[in-house]
Amino acid sequence: MGVTDFFDPDGIAVIGASKTPGKLGNDAMTNIRSYDGDVYPVNPSSSGSVYGYEFVESVADTDADLALCCVPSPVVPDVLEECGEAGVGAAVIFAGGFAEVDEDGQELEADVVRIGEEYDMTVLGPNTAGYCIPHLDLYGSFVPQIREVETGNVALVAQSGGVGITSSFQFDREEYGVSAMFGLGNRANTGFAELIPVLDDDPQTDAIALHIEGTEDIDAFFEVCRNAETPIVAYKAGSEDLSEFVQSHTGAPIQDRATYEETLAGEGVVFVDSVTELLDASRAIADTPTPAGEHVGVVTAQAGPGIIIADELNERGAVFPDLDDDTQARVDDLLQGITYTENPVDTGRPLPEFGQVIDAVARDDNVDIVIVYEIYEDSLGYPVEELETLSEEVDKPILFTVAGPDSFEEERLEMEAFGIPTFQAPERGAHAVAALIDSISDDA
Amino acid sequence: MGVTDFFDPDGIAVIGASKTPGKLGNDAMTNIRSYDGDVYPVNPSSSGSVYGYEFVESVADTDADLALCCVPSPVVPDVLEECGEAGVGAAVIFAGGFAEVDEDGQELEADVVRIGEEYDMTVLGPNTAGYCIPHLDLYGSFVPQIREVETGNVALVAQSGGVGITSSFQFDREEYGVSAMFGLGNRANTGFAELIPVLDDDPQTDAIALHIEGTEDIDAFFEVCRNAETPIVAYKAGSEDLSEFVQSHTGAPIQDRATYEETLAGEGVVFVDSVTELLDASRAIADTPTPAGEHVGVVTAQAGPGIIIADELNERGAVFPDLDDDTQARVDDLLQGITYTENPVDTGRPLPEFGQVIDAVARDDNVDIVIVYEIYEDSLGYPVEELETLSEEVDKPILFTVAGPDSFEEERLEMEAFGIPTFQAPERGAHAVAALIDSISDDA
Repeated sequence: MGVTDFFDPDGIAVIGASKTPGKLGNDAMTNIRSYDGDVYPVNPSSSGSVYGYEFVESVADTDADLALCCVPSPVVPDVLEECGEAGVGAAVIFAGGFAEVDEDGQELEADVVRIGEEYDMTVLGPNTAGYCIPHLDLYGSFVPQIREVETGNVALVAQSGGVGITSSFQFDREEYGVSAMFGLGNRANTGFAELIPVLDDDPQTDAIALHIEGTEDIDAFFEVCRNAETPIVAYKAGSEDLSEFVQSHTGAPIQDRATYEETLAGEGVVFVDSVTELLDASRAIADTPTPAGEHVGVVTAQAGPGIIIADELNERGAVFPDLDDDTQARVDDLLQGITYTENPVDTGRPLPEFGQVIDAVARDDNVDIVIVYEIYEDSLGYPVEELETLSEEVDKPILFTVAGPDSFEEERLEMEAFGIPTFQAPERGAHAVAALIDSISDDA
Repeated sequence: MGVTDFFDPDGIAVIGASKTPGKLGNDAMTNIRSYDGDVYPVNPSSSGSVYGYEFVESVADTDADLALCCVPSPVVPDVLEECGEAGVGAAVIFAGGFAEVDEDGQELEADVVRIGEEYDMTVLGPNTAGYCIPHLDLYGSFVPQIREVETGNVALVAQSGGVGITSSFQFDREEYGVSAMFGLGNRANTGFAELIPVLDDDPQTDAIALHIEGTEDIDAFFEVCRNAETPIVAYKAGSEDLSEFVQSHTGAPIQDRATYEETLAGEGVVFVDSVTELLDASRAIADTPTPAGEHVGVVTAQAGPGIIIADELNERGAVFPDLDDDTQARVDDLLQGITYTENPVDTGRPLPEFGQVIDAVARDDNVDIVIVYEIYEDSLGYPVEELETLSEEVDKPILFTVAGPDSFEEERLEMEAFGIPTFQAPERGAHAVAALIDSISDDA
């Protein structure tokens, strides 16, 4: 029993399963089909089968230890009671209409908490879009096409299921995936404090990305963040001015961003300012080694975007060290008579030597992190070979900001494949580097 | 003669044209082929033809009034002199190695300025990637595939050609285009003050996007911005700390962002903080009516992302008015028993009634701007019909933040086609709304 039942359920019951397309109980069935164990559509008023699975009258007739509850809030307590009686270890409650709406809802949610406790049952939600673990073919959600989201090495834990879903799809659209995504919703008995330790132990997860609105037991939250060995990137949404709207959503307590940032400062938890930054920072941290320091080498094929990157990094506390004499000599030799060979190195336009320039800067002991910017030209391509060698021989983060016509996509994905994170706008690359610098914890 | 020669040249000379792929003089030829007038590859040491155009010995042998100079800096003055003698009205100088590098370069650039003046010749650059005007099939640049950039209604004027190019490609990747793109480089005699008035008069241009590093005649810059009737969005890059790198690039004077923002405050010029925001804000302002005020109606199908949007807008001075009684009654009727029907309106999940909810909020007199958020579900799709009607009947900005699997792309482009700007991340939609609010000038 417990959170791990979300990872390796021995049979899944879909309570309130439906044959009718567009109904929540049908959407949940479409997503769960990829699960290779037993699936039990539970619905006393349905007969026959849905997607090849025979309907059963009650969860009592199943061997499921995970239940996806697709029923409206008023009947949730009874359904959950039956789950407990049937030996279900974990349940997902999609329905809204609980603590986030009114006092009746708060009573309903209290029942959910009590029943979860009584049967030692882990409850995700209520008021959540669910969860998914692509590498286990588990898509416990009613959101159509969530099963298109592929496997990656970042785990998303979102207080809002909607944010978890939209973030997963944004990862997917940019050709990445997730190791897991959990939408917490109202957090009856499963919140950050329960999930972070499990994801910290998950070999598929190299970074944990959090969307936070507010947490009741904030000390427990800080505790698990401090104890996690897996890097954590957090985006705190929901300002005090919006308290009414925020509370109406997940009943989250109102807490300001500063409380979180100040408490976890120097603990290796990185805070970011948007969903896009949350995804970019998580990918960069998951895919690259922890930098030894904040000394950044910038190599750009076009000075203007290089200035933008240096400017953003400068505002966020990065340092641009002088290259050591050997490096400088090598760069000057490669860039005869070119504008600006000191860090930031500006090659003026893409050149056949571009990869060697990156190589020289990346091997410089003064440099902890390398960020590259280049507008793609088909005749030259990106310096994929040099970067592959560097990713094997140099234990530093090397990030590549891509630009140009769509034709760079193939080489972008090649670079991603051997651990060079890529970013599609100058500020996105710069913010990812800033996140890497923030990820250096005091005790590192 | 003058800037307009960039728009309707009567014959184009490519000086230093080459048959060798990868050479700048060859790349420029590949791009200029789409021009339907006479093209003259000029190269005394080449014979025969390139891409079907016969080589000529000298610009004197041509009737060109636009010259693309693909020659290295030392010979630029002589080449420019010949252009002047040949009656060329406008020239683009791609080469670097002028005022941005050293004293010799400064002398070379002084020659360029002098010759331009002597022959009343408009010079773009030196040290620029050039320009393009897609709706006129004019691609005066050496950057391969710039000719893939299609026609849009935003004109980009970038102090850095590289930023102009990368911004144009970013527009193109998101299925937009540009009305024109000019990379200024060193601004021998063509800068913001010369181009903004011309673009202000350009019927193809509905908004002007500026990338600024620093301008010599800042008063002239402020003057043209104040006088322009076309909305202007500006991104000022290059902080004081980076002066050496910035100056080495375009020899731009060091000016801080505040100087620009304070001087143009209330003049209807919108300042943004990144390239992505520059593109998003320009599109939103180009495609929607100027809002009557800062009262924003938020309609979201998922509360979490709605909170993020409201949060971002709240920080940027937006106001979320109460809906008037009739609107509220209509919304409540549409959303029986749903979480949160007041502004921000949260429908809990996508519904068939979603479009009617947007309709109700958009027609509310208390609302000046509408921002919508919805994760796409194939079974429901986006409320395209309702939005098309609204775009015809309601004279307010309506923005739509899209999310979900790629399958929304078709309906996203439909909405774009009838003037509903779309954005692919919550913060991008919020920042676009903030830009619309900033675009309300004091005298509006």
